[in-house]
Amino acid sequence: MMKMLELIPGPSQMLPNVLKALGTPCGSSDLDPTFWDDYLALECNLQELLQAKNCNVVIQSGEAMLALWGALKSTIKPKDVVVCGVNGIYGEGFANMAKALGADVRVVQSDWRKTIDIEALCLEIRHSNPKLVTVVHCETPSGVLNNLNGVGEAVATYTTDGLFLVDFVSSGGGAPLNVDAWKIDLGLLGPQKALSGPPALAFTTVSEKAWKRINEVQYLGYDALQPFYRAALQQPRLLPYTHNWQAIRATLVACNNVKEEGGIDVVLHRHAEVSAFARRQVHETLQLTLYGDESAASPTVTAIELPEGTDWDALQEELCAQKLLVGGSYGPLKGRVLRLGHMGTQANKEVVVKAIHIIRAALEKLK
Amino acid sequence: MMKMLELIPGPSQMLPNVLKALGTPCGSSDLDPTFWDDYLALECNLQELLQAKNCNVVIQSGEAMLALWGALKSTIKPKDVVVCGVNGIYGEGFANMAKALGADVRVVQSDWRKTIDIEALCLEIRHSNPKLVTVVHCETPSGVLNNLNGVGEAVATYTTDGLFLVDFVSSGGGAPLNVDAWKIDLGLLGPQKALSGPPALAFTTVSEKAWKRINEVQYLGYDALQPFYRAALQQPRLLPYTHNWQAIRATLVACNNVKEEGGIDVVLHRHAEVSAFARRQVHETLQLTLYGDESAASPTVTAIELPEGTDWDALQEELCAQKLLVGGSYGPLKGRVLRLGHMGTQANKEVVVKAIHIIRAALEKLK
Repeated sequence: MMKMLELIPGPSQMLPNVLKALGTPCGSSDLDPTFWDDYLALECNLQELLQAKNCNVVIQSGEAMLALWGALKSTIKPKDVVVCGVNGIYGEGFANMAKALGADVRVVQSDWRKTIDIEALCLEIRHSNPKLVTVVHCETPSGVLNNLNGVGEAVATYTTDGLFLVDFVSSGGGAPLNVDAWKIDLGLLGPQKALSGPPALAFTTVSEKAWKRINEVQYLGYDALQPFYRAALQQPRLLPYTHNWQAIRATLVACNNVKEEGGIDVVLHRHAEVSAFARRQVHETLQLTLYGDESAASPTVTAIELPEGTDWDALQEELCAQKLLVGGSYGPLKGRVLRLGHMGTQANKEVVVKAIHIIRAALEKLK
Repeated sequence: MMKMLELIPGPSQMLPNVLKALGTPCGSSDLDPTFWDDYLALECNLQELLQAKNCNVVIQSGEAMLALWGALKSTIKPKDVVVCGVNGIYGEGFANMAKALGADVRVVQSDWRKTIDIEALCLEIRHSNPKLVTVVHCETPSGVLNNLNGVGEAVATYTTDGLFLVDFVSSGGGAPLNVDAWKIDLGLLGPQKALSGPPALAFTTVSEKAWKRINEVQYLGYDALQPFYRAALQQPRLLPYTHNWQAIRATLVACNNVKEEGGIDVVLHRHAEVSAFARRQVHETLQLTLYGDESAASPTVTAIELPEGTDWDALQEELCAQKLLVGGSYGPLKGRVLRLGHMGTQANKEVVVKAIHIIRAALEKLK
């Protein structure tokens, strides 16, 4: 199924120079001190891209889910109060993960088609003084981008020592983000979405306040953040496992592609333009309805409601036959929503135009 | 520091065809069903290589340490009795990990220079009826290969439902191994040692008996084995995260390199020959002492005692200046032992000859 037109919600396609770096020999990350030049350069690139200069960025070897589990397990203990902002499947997922870890979870449920209810969330934060507040920036399965304005401020002001965790796995690098200004203590990202790197690393921005908690909790495991605390300052520098140097090199090249394009602002503008274009095409050409409100549309992924009676499996098969790969969805949205992932290299108008025409023809055919 | 002569105890150098596969575009492992052809083909290759046809091989995205944590956390609960065979740093590491998980750990300590004391280990198994028995096949930091003869049999015969866990990360593919015959319930491997693949995956052979426990324990986390239970038989097939398709492709090519060479027996023979040659060279050319007994020498790594008074940092610097990269060691062996890693592509007599001469010259110079 190679050489398909891909408009999937990640992993997005890597450019040739990123793939080339992935397939280039490296030395031993355990023994060759130049490994650390690359590790620290990638941290520096991510700090810049995410406006997280007051944070460390921990780079772990594994997929982005590693950052989700790592951040939760490294910072909460059983019975800790955790407030989860929920307006989608991934937000709900965090609540379930925190419950599984024995936390006392307070869910603030909002409309799944709109941005999260900040007022209700801040009220709950003020009321229950949580150890951790979780929010998903972009709900990938429904294409909703959450406004986070004031949440970090509320966590900082109205809790004793609460931490603000944001999953920006499918928005970071594609939607405006300011980790420092938004007071995000733990921000989660992977390279395979808007950065179009390999699905092989997990990134976590960690504030000083979060390090303090991490060092108290002393959680041990593959996903643990603690072993990365000041790792670069130790003598000798020691990581808990052999790192994936190739993937770090490839992601450095992906970050450099952002710079070559004109910097993060230019890239964000491209995402905004392409996604607005995609939404217009959904209305005008497909005459279909978006799942989420226009005001909450993510610049990285667009979720479209399928017309009543559409058989998703048949539609997907027809799209595949026409060499187009798009996303379906999960949970309650399974079979009801089709997703265009226009993130990273896939934030491309020409690809969107082609995809829309293929989808229109397929829907006509299946009518 | 590229283009060094490398004789390190992993990651071993990938051959050009393995690197090429790593840098070749793949589709989406989440959406493209052909991903599963590769996943299952790699499982099948590993089953053959490790003689683990009665087991599944779970393939996880991350480094081999992921398999260590995943196997322990997926199978033991606090207070479970765990017997750890210890004759080296890694064996001791397992005991510490199990203790950190709240297990009731019984350490069977043996001489660190010899193969593990099977009799003492089996006696303890019989005596304490453990839920889990851990042994490291090759103690990478000291170059000792453990004889495991009869341990699995003892676990199967003398425990209620005990599991036998073997870490063969740095021996699998380089030393004889028979997972089924040796009754190994959980066998751990990564691609970057004797297979000379990328340091990006973790493999765990899982017996039916181990699956039963895993399904009882129901551990949740990034490293959890449970989500892989019969994953290929589900409809739709669903993994807990986006997999690293490139790394799976690269490891498939690495397995194919084993076949091209003439099969695993030919590869094992090369490892045995090269390591025996290396040990002779240590005695005859360097006139140094091996750390471990000849009878317990691993075919994948050779640990050499440094002469009294040698400054390891100065020696390593000199070797690097002469373009040779070898291993030092950890823990109590730090600064006392030099290691030659002749695993995978590095199990090569010519490289060993060159390395020995560089080491001899460096030791002369530093005298």
